[in-house]
Amino acid sequence: MTGERVNTPIHYTVGPSQLYPTVVAHIQDALDLNIMSISHRSAQFLEIYHDTSNRLRHLLTLPPAVHIFFVGSSLESMERTIENCVQEHCFHFVDGAFSAKWHQFALELGKKAQKIEARDGEGFHLDQEIPADTELICITQNETSTGVAIQPAAISGLKDRYPDKLIAVDTVSSCPFVTLDMTKVDIMFFSPQKGFGLPAGMGVLLVSEAAVAKTKEMQKKGATIGTYHSFLSLLQSEQVDQTPETPNVLGIYLLGKVCADLQERGIELIRDQTRAKSKLIYDTFSAHSRFRPHVQVPDFRSDTVVVIETPAEAGEIIKGLRSRGIIVASGYGKRSNDQIRIANFPAHDYSDLKEWISSI
Amino acid sequence: MTGERVNTPIHYTVGPSQLYPTVVAHIQDALDLNIMSISHRSAQFLEIYHDTSNRLRHLLTLPPAVHIFFVGSSLESMERTIENCVQEHCFHFVDGAFSAKWHQFALELGKKAQKIEARDGEGFHLDQEIPADTELICITQNETSTGVAIQPAAISGLKDRYPDKLIAVDTVSSCPFVTLDMTKVDIMFFSPQKGFGLPAGMGVLLVSEAAVAKTKEMQKKGATIGTYHSFLSLLQSEQVDQTPETPNVLGIYLLGKVCADLQERGIELIRDQTRAKSKLIYDTFSAHSRFRPHVQVPDFRSDTVVVIETPAEAGEIIKGLRSRGIIVASGYGKRSNDQIRIANFPAHDYSDLKEWISSI
Repeated sequence: MTGERVNTPIHYTVGPSQLYPTVVAHIQDALDLNIMSISHRSAQFLEIYHDTSNRLRHLLTLPPAVHIFFVGSSLESMERTIENCVQEHCFHFVDGAFSAKWHQFALELGKKAQKIEARDGEGFHLDQEIPADTELICITQNETSTGVAIQPAAISGLKDRYPDKLIAVDTVSSCPFVTLDMTKVDIMFFSPQKGFGLPAGMGVLLVSEAAVAKTKEMQKKGATIGTYHSFLSLLQSEQVDQTPETPNVLGIYLLGKVCADLQERGIELIRDQTRAKSKLIYDTFSAHSRFRPHVQVPDFRSDTVVVIETPAEAGEIIKGLRSRGIIVASGYGKRSNDQIRIANFPAHDYSDLKEWISSI
Repeated sequence: MTGERVNTPIHYTVGPSQLYPTVVAHIQDALDLNIMSISHRSAQFLEIYHDTSNRLRHLLTLPPAVHIFFVGSSLESMERTIENCVQEHCFHFVDGAFSAKWHQFALELGKKAQKIEARDGEGFHLDQEIPADTELICITQNETSTGVAIQPAAISGLKDRYPDKLIAVDTVSSCPFVTLDMTKVDIMFFSPQKGFGLPAGMGVLLVSEAAVAKTKEMQKKGATIGTYHSFLSLLQSEQVDQTPETPNVLGIYLLGKVCADLQERGIELIRDQTRAKSKLIYDTFSAHSRFRPHVQVPDFRSDTVVVIETPAEAGEIIKGLRSRGIIVASGYGKRSNDQIRIANFPAHDYSDLKEWISSI
């Protein structure tokens, strides 16, 4: 570990995290091209919007019918999804702090929100019976708080069993490693500061035609669906390659550029590399004398956010790594001194990881 | 006008606009300091949040009791203000497209929103009678669509007449040239991509204790006040120098830096310079053979967004200026070919302006 590394640390934090290696050059280009000064109604911006949408659609293999909306954050995506797709009843699979928050949001918006809770460190096979009156099923595919993941195949299977219910999936910290079959899902959202290695300050919300139809139906019935960021307002702007508000222009520009970079590197290669890195982390801690992976069932283990049980030692480990230029996250909330969380995003390199992971 | 200018144009667009001259260096610093990778729950972020809040409070002379919230955009500030401060009745002064949009948002949120409309190009002295049941009065101090401004003194006077009503003021495109006496106003919001010369992707929302008390009262009565960006959620996070969601960390960092730069240059000097530049623009077009300022009454003229009537010639003027490296905005909406709009922000220099303004 060189002295230089301490000045230029590598962030394995769970988002914001390490910038994707090309981002600095793209920011420099954005400055050279005055991207931060152009009007969000100008032809130049419309081109950027169109380009980013196309590249994202290509990278995530999204059908043409899926709408791509840019919002402020993934918490906003959670709120807008409830507001625009639930007249009364939603059902939440809760396997950590963020899925619990989503359920809480639904209650705060006055919905009859039911939930099923997994035991800490466990996820769902999604084989539970869903109440008949459920309009929207909410699933947190990758729980950033617990490192629990739900298999994409299980999510697709749910739509086969409940074709008339809308399904919304949080892939905040797994996309683009995870993408979903959007013919089996109605809403998917993520945050570019995680798997895309971008600066924070934006959320991306993917919405099916069926979800938009639901919003229209709710509006007809007089429900409150929000204002500038209702699905209908976002849709109207999307159709002219714009956003209702002045958006994070730089964020949209950088997302398009990094999508192109990931595509060029090869998204399947990146996924293989992600699996190799997560295997390295899980294997290392499965064989550790004192520490162990928080998630025991292999099917529920996230590849992109790995949580390790480090009873009463997290603070010390984090401090020790930091002195060597390695930044990892503490456990979430009450687990802050009992766990560490290690992000495994496309910006992270296998050999960099190998250099330090077995030294804990 | 040099060839270089064409490659490095000056943006007099009404926001996004010309970056404040120090922004490029601050972005470089942010990259060097890994600002875009740090966790939004880290001590380093808390310091940035605290620093930006303090510098903004100092620059705008905000009393300690005023809360500073960071949100996604000023359209969001409009929505959240209605959602958190209006149980039933609000009253809107409408003098352009953005004030009309705010009124429309209130209707969409199911409120009994009344309005009074000014004639095109005129503003308000705010001496009208406000309906007794009004909970919130909404004023667009600087209408970016029409270049109409309302005198801050008139706004303060309104509170003297209606001490029991909440007053919310949109200063999106006038702050920091305009700041308000926050003992006479309950909500004020602005967008950093305008008067602060920053990249877009954030809104700043200033909220009084009285407004927070109203939100608490509404919550007790079972009203829907939103979720992660309710005033109560924003307040809870503000108290620990954080935001509920992962915010635009770079945006918050840059805002603090530019506040310090504006303070160092001298905010009163900047205001004098702004008035000198707006006088130059208004004088030039008042004496013009074919064109004239859109706003006739001097009291209603915005210093920061100047709208000029250029019947049927806006497209040509904009194109001509663009070829010389000067970017101005077209008229808003239907006025796109009949008007141009010229921003006059702290990032704009008197001598640069003088070089081209009289050549139209």
